[in-house]
Amino acid sequence: MTAFTATVTVRLKHGVLDPEAETTQRSLERLGFELEDLRSADVFELDLDAESAEAAADRADEMAERLLANPTIHDYDVEVDRRE
Amino acid sequence: MTAFTATVTVRLKHGVLDPEAETTQRSLERLGFELEDLRSADVFELDLDAESAEAAADRADEMAERLLANPTIHDYDVEVDRRE
Repeated sequence: MTAFTATVTVRLKHGVLDPEAETTQRSLERLGFELEDLRSADVFELDLDAESAEAAADRADEMAERLLANPTIHDYDVEVDRRE
Repeated sequence: MTAFTATVTVRLKHGVLDPEAETTQRSLERLGFELEDLRSADVFELDLDAESAEAAADRADEMAERLLANPTIHDYDVEVDRRE
């Protein structure tokens, strides 16, 4: 078994309203910053042991499908790195 | 001016309790997944126009300092990419 960290990034699908991001953008603009757009995402860093990077990615994928992301409104991607 | 996307990742400092991450980890374990650790982070993707990648990073840095991160409990890092 090898130690991996799988990074799962969960984003709202294009077209899904994100009032929190809008509020953040407006607050930054009120502070004088100019922005074209602001998007927010949630990141989960999962430390797990697996036979291979592929097996770690498969497991992270399953965790995203079952709990971390809501497929109706979210897209997600998974990146796997070896953990020291 | 060039179009950039600055990605600001905001993490809790080491040692700061993260009950949300703990709950998420426990829920995954209840579903049968084995995990060594789970950490969560917030990501803000900022689309902005700037003279250079360095200027874009400086501005994203300032936004993190002033609003996106709380320096008492958060660390953050900034990555800048050219936007198409």
